[in-house]
Amino acid sequence: MNALIFQRLSSLQSPVFSCRRVIIDSILVDKPKGVRIFMKKIILTGDRPTGRLHIGHYVGSLSERVKLQNTGAFDEIYFMIADAQALTDNADNPEKVRQNIMQVALDYLAVGIDPSKATIFIQSQVPALAELTVYYMNLVTVSRVQRNPTVKAEIQQKNFEASVPVGFFCYPISQAADITAFHATSVPVGEDQEPMLEQCREIVHKFNEVYGETLTMPEIYLSKNAARLRLPGLDGKAKMSKSLGNCIYLADDEKTVQQKVMSMYTDPTHLKVSDPGHIEGNTVFTYLDAFIKPDSFEKYWPEYKNLDELKAHYQRGGLGDVKIKKFLNKVLQEELRPIRERRAYWEERLPEVYEILKEGSAKAAAKAQQTLDEVKASMRIDYFTNDNLLK
Amino acid sequence: MNALIFQRLSSLQSPVFSCRRVIIDSILVDKPKGVRIFMKKIILTGDRPTGRLHIGHYVGSLSERVKLQNTGAFDEIYFMIADAQALTDNADNPEKVRQNIMQVALDYLAVGIDPSKATIFIQSQVPALAELTVYYMNLVTVSRVQRNPTVKAEIQQKNFEASVPVGFFCYPISQAADITAFHATSVPVGEDQEPMLEQCREIVHKFNEVYGETLTMPEIYLSKNAARLRLPGLDGKAKMSKSLGNCIYLADDEKTVQQKVMSMYTDPTHLKVSDPGHIEGNTVFTYLDAFIKPDSFEKYWPEYKNLDELKAHYQRGGLGDVKIKKFLNKVLQEELRPIRERRAYWEERLPEVYEILKEGSAKAAAKAQQTLDEVKASMRIDYFTNDNLLK
Repeated sequence: MNALIFQRLSSLQSPVFSCRRVIIDSILVDKPKGVRIFMKKIILTGDRPTGRLHIGHYVGSLSERVKLQNTGAFDEIYFMIADAQALTDNADNPEKVRQNIMQVALDYLAVGIDPSKATIFIQSQVPALAELTVYYMNLVTVSRVQRNPTVKAEIQQKNFEASVPVGFFCYPISQAADITAFHATSVPVGEDQEPMLEQCREIVHKFNEVYGETLTMPEIYLSKNAARLRLPGLDGKAKMSKSLGNCIYLADDEKTVQQKVMSMYTDPTHLKVSDPGHIEGNTVFTYLDAFIKPDSFEKYWPEYKNLDELKAHYQRGGLGDVKIKKFLNKVLQEELRPIRERRAYWEERLPEVYEILKEGSAKAAAKAQQTLDEVKASMRIDYFTNDNLLK
Repeated sequence: MNALIFQRLSSLQSPVFSCRRVIIDSILVDKPKGVRIFMKKIILTGDRPTGRLHIGHYVGSLSERVKLQNTGAFDEIYFMIADAQALTDNADNPEKVRQNIMQVALDYLAVGIDPSKATIFIQSQVPALAELTVYYMNLVTVSRVQRNPTVKAEIQQKNFEASVPVGFFCYPISQAADITAFHATSVPVGEDQEPMLEQCREIVHKFNEVYGETLTMPEIYLSKNAARLRLPGLDGKAKMSKSLGNCIYLADDEKTVQQKVMSMYTDPTHLKVSDPGHIEGNTVFTYLDAFIKPDSFEKYWPEYKNLDELKAHYQRGGLGDVKIKKFLNKVLQEELRPIRERRAYWEERLPEVYEILKEGSAKAAAKAQQTLDEVKASMRIDYFTNDNLLK
């Protein structure tokens, strides 16, 4: 079933029908057929505040979000700092989560997320999310969650085995609450999160089936640039990870970035400059694939016209790793410099960042409460609205 | 560890130190030793609104609650209509739950629960309970819930097997939220609920250990009258159950009660009046054990001095079932008449019942919110209180 049919009539009340809105034919049950309604395009995504964000997050998702934000194609954009979700497997270390909230907020502002275009909020400050989670928990079976491949993989990765906390086990349901609370239509996340979105879509389907059309069916928004989605760690390991110490952080200074680039994993068989080199699994080239810009060679290495020429030379032999790393460093620094400068700007203005988070959270709380009211009305547990319990 | 040491200093602010309060020595960590603090005595218990209440509920728990209420020994008393819990295994039938809320409220008022002494509230109208549930879920492992014998038994009883809803699976955690939200010290429930209270106590212990002393350790309050706790159904089956059709409801009229009593299961070997009869497993005698009063024989059957004499005659032979059933009917009707009259009184005044529920729910919501604020402060996720996030 196409997600577009899960419309919300409340959008009809919008005073302006801008060209950004998609006009479709409603085929909702219980609503007159053929009525043309307007669907808001709404983004929700977020990050767990368990550490500073790194360039893996940047290329895989943050830069994409900024692009989406700046297209002007979305009516509402929400970026969530998922502290409550982070607590599901950090319950005994709330201070780590707490400390990283401001760091993630600074990273958001640093990469160009604009609080006048997008609402940045803190998950735990939106009470309606917990209530939605609790009601959605009735619509999902334990065995369904157990089959979720992402949950399975993460339980294994975190060595939880039998001791997985119930909160962590249920986080796909909690994510469905996050997404649906804002009637999000697009959820820009990595491919590994696809089973999570599938779980959310099942909950939306079940809820609307049991209680009547209420929730909006979300779609996953996948980036097209595979190299950017799968940026490995400095050591060539599958993923950047704080625990592996193989990340370049958005907050790293110029010298630290340079040192990290110079220490990167390349081709272990490329011992002498004259040896032929390999591109596959060579982290320096994976990074170049992700970060190269049309004018990078012209600016920093005019001897080559493009990345294909450089790769060809490396593969023939006669090109040393150090030269390529120096080039990558220049390309990376160009990307990271404005981020670093914006971060420094906001670090000087923490009370302003605090206000952004406070206002964003209040706005998100109001919106989620409105959805919760709709959910409770559909479930008919709005007993004290209009003396409903007496009816 | 004795539960009495889990005190809340807020009680110190109480303007009146009445004789009802238990004075104990505080040995709380982080608080000066030897300080004498005052502990409120608070009751919380409740019922799932999935059907009208029957005399099994009455003798096992409702009559006990009314007694506790009227002792005046408790500072606060909360009776919860657990609609959210009922929805965990009735998600596709919210109307059943909804319809029974008013029925349970009427039953409460009918048995003598007094809204001026006890707060009657509806679980779903207390938003803080969902938030507490979500945070407590991080403190319990999946395997711990799986080991809970009450959950195990109920999953089997309801034929859930692999399809148990997550919400139902998690209801021991949700119950811990209900109990701790009101800082309940006493939870009057049946023996079968003991594992539930144990789960709650574990959560309290874990929470206070990880985040500092915040929650109050509850104690189970078990009734001493075993016959009253284990009232079988009319057919002699283990328990009264709506699905087995073996209940006498509090709302049944006089004639219905009489018919049901006359149809009761007695001793299948007692074929002729002259046959010796058996008391064990004889439902009529179990009911007499539960309902007999010191003056019942004098009033309704002066040929016997007490129940022992009656039992002895039945065991010797020469006493017919019909006579005993007629006697039981008189004893039962005496107990049920005032309940029926009060029920009729309140049925005429549904808008008043509605107001009682509305006011009770608002009062409960405020109290639970206060606990949630304490919980969030202990977890240090009260970011926007006193600009905490900037600290």
